[in-house]
Amino acid sequence: MTLTVLFAAGTERWDAYRAPLQEAFLAKGLDADLVQEADPSRVDYIIYAPGSPLQDFRPFTRTRAVLNIWAGVERIVGNPTLTQPLCRMVDPSLTEGMVEWVAGQVLRHHLGLDTHILHQDGIWRHDLVPPLARDRPVAVLGMGALGQACGQALAGLGFAVTGWSRGARAVSGLVGRFGEAGLRDALTGAQIVVLLLPLTPDTENLINAERLGWLHRGAVLINPGRGALIDDAALLAALDSGQVGHATLDVFRTEPLPADHPFWAHPRVTVTPHIAAETRPETAAVVIAENIRRSEAGEALLHVVDRQRGY
Amino acid sequence: MTLTVLFAAGTERWDAYRAPLQEAFLAKGLDADLVQEADPSRVDYIIYAPGSPLQDFRPFTRTRAVLNIWAGVERIVGNPTLTQPLCRMVDPSLTEGMVEWVAGQVLRHHLGLDTHILHQDGIWRHDLVPPLARDRPVAVLGMGALGQACGQALAGLGFAVTGWSRGARAVSGLVGRFGEAGLRDALTGAQIVVLLLPLTPDTENLINAERLGWLHRGAVLINPGRGALIDDAALLAALDSGQVGHATLDVFRTEPLPADHPFWAHPRVTVTPHIAAETRPETAAVVIAENIRRSEAGEALLHVVDRQRGY
Repeated sequence: MTLTVLFAAGTERWDAYRAPLQEAFLAKGLDADLVQEADPSRVDYIIYAPGSPLQDFRPFTRTRAVLNIWAGVERIVGNPTLTQPLCRMVDPSLTEGMVEWVAGQVLRHHLGLDTHILHQDGIWRHDLVPPLARDRPVAVLGMGALGQACGQALAGLGFAVTGWSRGARAVSGLVGRFGEAGLRDALTGAQIVVLLLPLTPDTENLINAERLGWLHRGAVLINPGRGALIDDAALLAALDSGQVGHATLDVFRTEPLPADHPFWAHPRVTVTPHIAAETRPETAAVVIAENIRRSEAGEALLHVVDRQRGY
Repeated sequence: MTLTVLFAAGTERWDAYRAPLQEAFLAKGLDADLVQEADPSRVDYIIYAPGSPLQDFRPFTRTRAVLNIWAGVERIVGNPTLTQPLCRMVDPSLTEGMVEWVAGQVLRHHLGLDTHILHQDGIWRHDLVPPLARDRPVAVLGMGALGQACGQALAGLGFAVTGWSRGARAVSGLVGRFGEAGLRDALTGAQIVVLLLPLTPDTENLINAERLGWLHRGAVLINPGRGALIDDAALLAALDSGQVGHATLDVFRTEPLPADHPFWAHPRVTVTPHIAAETRPETAAVVIAENIRRSEAGEALLHVVDRQRGY
């Protein structure tokens, strides 16, 4: 029998997800009808994104799982009408995407690409030659899966990379620094800093005025981690003084970043809209199709959210 | 006795080269006075760049070598007053610099960085998510030392790289394509193309209207090779039609590129001023100091130009 799969992950994503999902269903041998509207009592699976207008799950009496297309479920996990199993997205391409974004941003700042992108004015600025990557000290804060992968990719491009984590952790190819004293070592003289730490009480406002002062003057700060890792006021002051030469920020305390936030207008800030580690339709579709296949075959669903832990 | 080394490589380079040269002299145990002006009859070595006002080498009677800071010597090799040995620059960091520039430009276009660099207008453009590198076909034309190194670095970042050369040459990590038929294979469907070919009668205007038509619509062309590899009029037409989405050009038939050249004004072209593979003062200084040390020790000079061959 043909399955009814309701796409309730935002009409703006329909064009991007429709074909990849249909391909993935086919590849998994699923006979499934992917729709944007359906009689709730006939829906077998829901593909979901937080922020969807669908908030009342009670009419979906035969729905066997709600499949989130994002890793984060904090905006749906507490919904009292949701009694069906909820699965979060664990997208294997997330690390790849993050490595590409971090490598691209580090090289952009290393090479000074903005000068040429912004000034196509007929002036031959031949005097602007960057040092080699091996003479560019980069600090990556956070040595989880993403931090390790990004640090190693940057080392592979030749950068002199120091990887910092709270607890000692050796990562091949990187100079390791640990704990409070190691943080000062990692940041002192760093010309490019990449933040890939989780947000915890220990890491909130980790990047404050004192620690920004340790960097090489004119250093670049790149934050694809969490907005609250940075003391925003301290960063703005460091940008104004020139201690920080540029900040490229992908994550913020409030998202979307309000249009009147000073980061948008600051000439030394590049705001990017939380795209560094984005769910990709092509890979996410495979994860969703596999979960539907498992459910139909009587196998356990993958990545089921624990309502008590909240993730 | 203290050596007199005349820096005749452009006053605009003095600030960048002075300290690296003095450090390199010290490291090689040379007692040398680096100057911008001197009595010609007292000059032991000349550090030179094409285009220097110094064109008459006859008064430099005790000068034991002219050390070019560029790889290219075509503008000095025919100078009839130059009877002293002429050495060209072979900078080991040139490949490193080229890999960094190519990786940075490919990632810039892959990730769509320009949108965010150019538009910090408070609009949260979250819908612009690029595919993963593994779904981005890149063609590198030219499998010499630079092409191989760049192709492999791009493959290391995950890109699907095809490497093309005229003669068959297997390069680890890349899909190889060869000869005329292979060129069509390499270009067909390519979304990013990097030109790293030498300029020969066979490669002049290689990138013409027909071959631009083989690319994926909206493809990006990156040229750090030689300006004349591209038929400029065909490229401009392809940019206007949208067949080529962007061209980032570092080399031109005439350099500096004249301020009134259409490339400067075209919204889909980024002109960079021949910086992709630049001599670096820090590494070039070591090459120059080593050659002076060898000369003073009675050893043969490295990279002496053959006046017959012209390089």
